[in-house]
Amino acid sequence: MSGSTLGTLFTVTSFGESHGPAIGCVVDGCPPGLELSEADIQAELDRRKPGTSRHVTQRKEPDSVEILSGVFEGKTTGHPIALLIRNTDQRSQDYSKISQTFRPGHADYTYWHKYGIRDYRGGGRSSARETAVRVAAGAIAKKWLRERYGIVIRGFMGQLGEIRIPFKGWEHVSENAFFAANDEIVPRLEAYMDEIRADRDSIGARIDVIASGVPVGWGEPVYDRLDADIAYAMMSINAVKGVEIGDGFDVVAQRGTVHGDELTPDGFLSNHAGGVLGGVSSGQDVRVSIAIKPTSSLPQNRRSIDLAGAPTEMMTTGRHDPCVGIRATPVAEAMLALVLVDHALRHRAQNADVQVATPRIAGLAPAGHQDVPGPKG
Amino acid sequence: MSGSTLGTLFTVTSFGESHGPAIGCVVDGCPPGLELSEADIQAELDRRKPGTSRHVTQRKEPDSVEILSGVFEGKTTGHPIALLIRNTDQRSQDYSKISQTFRPGHADYTYWHKYGIRDYRGGGRSSARETAVRVAAGAIAKKWLRERYGIVIRGFMGQLGEIRIPFKGWEHVSENAFFAANDEIVPRLEAYMDEIRADRDSIGARIDVIASGVPVGWGEPVYDRLDADIAYAMMSINAVKGVEIGDGFDVVAQRGTVHGDELTPDGFLSNHAGGVLGGVSSGQDVRVSIAIKPTSSLPQNRRSIDLAGAPTEMMTTGRHDPCVGIRATPVAEAMLALVLVDHALRHRAQNADVQVATPRIAGLAPAGHQDVPGPKG
Amino acid sequence: MSGSTLGTLFTVTSFGESHGPAIGCVVDGCPPGLELSEADIQAELDRRKPGTSRHVTQRKEPDSVEILSGVFEGKTTGHPIALLIRNTDQRSQDYSKISQTFRPGHADYTYWHKYGIRDYRGGGRSSARETAVRVAAGAIAKKWLRERYGIVIRGFMGQLGEIRIPFKGWEHVSENAFFAANDEIVPRLEAYMDEIRADRDSIGARIDVIASGVPVGWGEPVYDRLDADIAYAMMSINAVKGVEIGDGFDVVAQRGTVHGDELTPDGFLSNHAGGVLGGVSSGQDVRVSIAIKPTSSLPQNRRSIDLAGAPTEMMTTGRHDPCVGIRATPVAEAMLALVLVDHALRHRAQNADVQVATPRIAGLAPAGHQDVPGPKG
Amino acid sequence: MSGSTLGTLFTVTSFGESHGPAIGCVVDGCPPGLELSEADIQAELDRRKPGTSRHVTQRKEPDSVEILSGVFEGKTTGHPIALLIRNTDQRSQDYSKISQTFRPGHADYTYWHKYGIRDYRGGGRSSARETAVRVAAGAIAKKWLRERYGIVIRGFMGQLGEIRIPFKGWEHVSENAFFAANDEIVPRLEAYMDEIRADRDSIGARIDVIASGVPVGWGEPVYDRLDADIAYAMMSINAVKGVEIGDGFDVVAQRGTVHGDELTPDGFLSNHAGGVLGGVSSGQDVRVSIAIKPTSSLPQNRRSIDLAGAPTEMMTTGRHDPCVGIRATPVAEAMLALVLVDHALRHRAQNADVQVATPRIAGLAPAGHQDVPGPKG
Repeated sequence: MSGSTLGTLFTVTSFGESHGPAIGCVVDGCPPGLELSEADIQAELDRRKPGTSRHVTQRKEPDSVEILSGVFEGKTTGHPIALLIRNTDQRSQDYSKISQTFRPGHADYTYWHKYGIRDYRGGGRSSARETAVRVAAGAIAKKWLRERYGIVIRGFMGQLGEIRIPFKGWEHVSENAFFAANDEIVPRLEAYMDEIRADRDSIGARIDVIASGVPVGWGEPVYDRLDADIAYAMMSINAVKGVEIGDGFDVVAQRGTVHGDELTPDGFLSNHAGGVLGGVSSGQDVRVSIAIKPTSSLPQNRRSIDLAGAPTEMMTTGRHDPCVGIRATPVAEAMLALVLVDHALRHRAQNADVQVATPRIAGLAPAGHQDVPGPKG
Repeated sequence: MSGSTLGTLFTVTSFGESHGPAIGCVVDGCPPGLELSEADIQAELDRRKPGTSRHVTQRKEPDSVEILSGVFEGKTTGHPIALLIRNTDQRSQDYSKISQTFRPGHADYTYWHKYGIRDYRGGGRSSARETAVRVAAGAIAKKWLRERYGIVIRGFMGQLGEIRIPFKGWEHVSENAFFAANDEIVPRLEAYMDEIRADRDSIGARIDVIASGVPVGWGEPVYDRLDADIAYAMMSINAVKGVEIGDGFDVVAQRGTVHGDELTPDGFLSNHAGGVLGGVSSGQDVRVSIAIKPTSSLPQNRRSIDLAGAPTEMMTTGRHDPCVGIRATPVAEAMLALVLVDHALRHRAQNADVQVATPRIAGLAPAGHQDVPGPKG
Repeated sequence: MSGSTLGTLFTVTSFGESHGPAIGCVVDGCPPGLELSEADIQAELDRRKPGTSRHVTQRKEPDSVEILSGVFEGKTTGHPIALLIRNTDQRSQDYSKISQTFRPGHADYTYWHKYGIRDYRGGGRSSARETAVRVAAGAIAKKWLRERYGIVIRGFMGQLGEIRIPFKGWEHVSENAFFAANDEIVPRLEAYMDEIRADRDSIGARIDVIASGVPVGWGEPVYDRLDADIAYAMMSINAVKGVEIGDGFDVVAQRGTVHGDELTPDGFLSNHAGGVLGGVSSGQDVRVSIAIKPTSSLPQNRRSIDLAGAPTEMMTTGRHDPCVGIRATPVAEAMLALVLVDHALRHRAQNADVQVATPRIAGLAPAGHQDVPGPKG
Repeated sequence: MSGSTLGTLFTVTSFGESHGPAIGCVVDGCPPGLELSEADIQAELDRRKPGTSRHVTQRKEPDSVEILSGVFEGKTTGHPIALLIRNTDQRSQDYSKISQTFRPGHADYTYWHKYGIRDYRGGGRSSARETAVRVAAGAIAKKWLRERYGIVIRGFMGQLGEIRIPFKGWEHVSENAFFAANDEIVPRLEAYMDEIRADRDSIGARIDVIASGVPVGWGEPVYDRLDADIAYAMMSINAVKGVEIGDGFDVVAQRGTVHGDELTPDGFLSNHAGGVLGGVSSGQDVRVSIAIKPTSSLPQNRRSIDLAGAPTEMMTTGRHDPCVGIRATPVAEAMLALVLVDHALRHRAQNADVQVATPRIAGLAPAGHQDVPGPKG
């Protein structure tokens, strides 16, 4: 399968460069009969789009999506859904100078050696602009999961640089530019970002995503486990350097008596596993965390080499996010949705006839649960 | 593609249960002409096999591998290589009692609901015994990568429970049961494990794996990135709950001026990226860390439910590793090798004709490098 | 996906050479809960096995199958089912002389240039012996399709060389070595084959296969159509040179008023389409024909070249089928079953929730239908 | 993999309905550095486009293609190439009446039951309009194969209804609306089509396609054989009911002494195999024939049922090809090109290092060869 296609049954085939005519994708395998309009997708795109606060890139892109196929009289037909987003604010002149060198921390050097040719305008194919496509495709996945299974997928920023962001409530997430689940901390985050920008620097972040309502049974042993496919999907997002499921790296120093989630008729007593046991969803919340590196594009001189291998210095002066993590929450939610819908279909393909008398136990009580939604919130 | 097949061009299709007649796999897509014997594979299997110290399961399995196909007169033919490992020491009686309940932290509950049937003997398909298959297949990948490209893939235990294990030298790794790259710390690790066992408990671990000599250019944007496929492969290993590339979760609090690895004609000045930029290998060491949870099988009572949903208690009395991380290093090395060989083939499929005049810069000097091989060693 | 794996969700990964230790496969994606024993598979293997009449190869192979995994207490578990068939009667000495040249009509020349190495013993990987694996895997598919959907898959020889074999009744097929659905013609077929052997020659055949009871709706537009995947699966059988669905090549000279099958509340009025419309099953019989070339191994001198490119002559003296088509009927049935089960799972993955008020019309009445089961019978 | 994606490494993911906003595809895996412009693709599209003679549909579609990505400064970058063709002449009113019934011979009935929803305008997704996408993608494949390996892929109509069309010369093919390799027969074909139209009927055709210059070694045993993938690709074209490689169904009555192509230092002495031995290309011409059924849309009453299952009659009055085979030659060429490029990449992925001292023998002399290019010309 080609490197630009994601999924086995519900697939996304992505295309487009930062400064080409358009970006977009083909979503195939979507079940028929889902009500779908461009507005459904636009709502998610608007959460990710640039230019919404001073803390993100000032590129002005409406990110207007057009559905080209696969929807008839307002419903999906089961055929490929092509989504098109035209690029409008490209300012290619910002990037022409980088054609002769390689930006540190970027794909410039590796793409150049891999392909022998490079669309250097705005990073070309390696630009984070491609994540808009993921959000658009993920909007379809999210909608189907919610309508068919009642699954809710939500994310928030768990940490910005050194600042841990305690989880206070989901209602805060949409109220600030950071996707922080905590309104009180927002002024501190804003001051912190202003300082980073004043230093002409950038900073990393941690994003937490949770899917609630996932039925027991999704995930394919032993390689295409639900958590393995989540790890793949998350690590495929630009700038991600780490993925955790459940307690993640905290398990290194954990004892088995702490980690193993006990079962009772009223539900699991804890969720250290993050909703996945043996690679298969347990019915508890699926909890994922990702680490996002600081933006590599910096408005200060950095050492590099030119196409002839000679030393040079370069400064990136285009419009960039000082923290790519700020707009990453909708992207991470989309990737989780895309993995889940694919496994929903894979599961019922093989196991549609399975009937088990054993009751399915619930997860922890929602009330207590929301107090600690993230692995390290 | 089915859930038991790994890879796109160099594929591993795995089969077998812990207490069935055999485990094994079919390795397809291996380039022809590689000298290969059962001894090559056995050497890797012996590094992982059970019963080699008091700190691991006492199950006695020779793990003798038989090559059933794909090798002719000592060389691979390009056709599928089937590997067979017969199970010998099964002791099924240890497991019969768990047929009516679900071990906390295991796949019992999820498999039961997914399939409506469960081979409960020793965990059946969900047993870590399956990782022997990965090591066997990985031995072929490792050999080809070493002979064709000079790539060396090595791992070590970076942390056992609370104990961080400072990297001292590769030569120590094969000298102790823990795969610790440090001989001085071994007595402390042994005492720690004795304590864990005395407490009838188990503990987690962190494993670090490094591939040196990977050429620039491997990895497929934008989804099948090298790091995305590594994350998938690592997370698919039993008990893994987190994966990091390069600095991993440390990037959350890093600034861009620290993280972005600068380039000079003499090489990159640092390797925070872990050898992957934009999803494509940079020529630097590929650095991966994984978090392994504590064994869920514990010789003390844990709460669970039975097949009718009624509460019960259960104690696991079979032979188990008190720390599955101890034998995980060869498994992690194998998974990294399998991802790399697959991407080696994918890369040259598309880009065999590419020629670039720009010199390929080296990574950091080996001397300095070995001082800090792991992300957090 | 590797070249030795068939299918998307219900997959078969095949291995083994004619004169290696064993052949076999891993069947993955089989729904759980299917009763399955080695006897179920053996029954199909026995229909294909060599040495059952004077008209086929005299190699004596019991083709005993062993199930290595994926079955527990007599039922499939949903996990990979590994099947192993040991080779016993190899007589490698018959083949050593062909190591230095290329048998006309065989894969010798092409494998040699492709891989640079060749297991020349009995054709190695290119031997028709591999079709035993297809029959074994197909037995599982057949059983599931029959038990879950009542689908019956049956084949017969429609033509042997110049002799067309009129369809008389299914009950005759198992009564003769040719799989002829006509007892009266058998003496003529036997005499014909005796003549071919006396001429030290070989001959082609046409096999017809029909699947009855396939529900409407299987097949994935627009590339993975049911008929496209059938064409792939059939053409992948050794010696097949042509595939037809429904009326096949007869459509070239047909008019639309003849070809288009009209619909009535009592069913379709004809089945020129062969049970597939727009790549999707229509509920009528799926009708497939394949052309099998004459065996290329002949006991008379044929011109070839040696490894140095010099001209030579060679005669094949091993044990061979003078008409590989004679044993091909179970293989063709197996391939049709494997495609159908895969599409059954793919269909319900996407469309499990679809409900349509329009009644599903039946195919033609069975009575009339059996008069003309094959496209050209 | 989803049903709308073709290929393993060089992939085409297709989208679009006959009367939706657009059709198009994403071509992924194309090697970088290929000079490519919209004119390269347009030239092939113009060979297939409607409205060019009175013998094809009178729908007026310019089929103007736009490249949305994957090309930079006139060369492919190795990234996905998205192709967009806007629909312009849709006349949806022609089709509204068929929303309540099923056209015989079409996908209407099967799509309806499969998906529970149907874009009935012009056949929606099942329209032959989708084949424009194949031609566009195939143009890229053709160009790369020609520039990289000197491969030439050409097709012609071998038979129209009862009229066999003797091969006279390639130069005639582009000179008539039928793709006949024979100028003298054209008046007869025109008269024949006028008669078919006067009868308000339609007719089938046979198309032959030949790839010259294919190197020895392409194709993956044992399932993904070159001929198996060709059969799949050809049968996936709308209206195709049969596929032959080399002598095709003629092998049924052939003897082995006739069929097996002998080898000499000067080349193979014949090409009954059609350029594929053991599923791998032999270096001879790859010869393929396909049978195309008569158009199912007819301007006369045909029996059908309505959505409630009640009997009805319907006449198709839209603009249709009375012989879909007339415009099928470029489509068949495109599909052959797409299979070949995919196998070119797959072959070198595994076997890039293979070196064989044995000379590669040529096929038959081109002169003699062109006399009989098609299997039954």
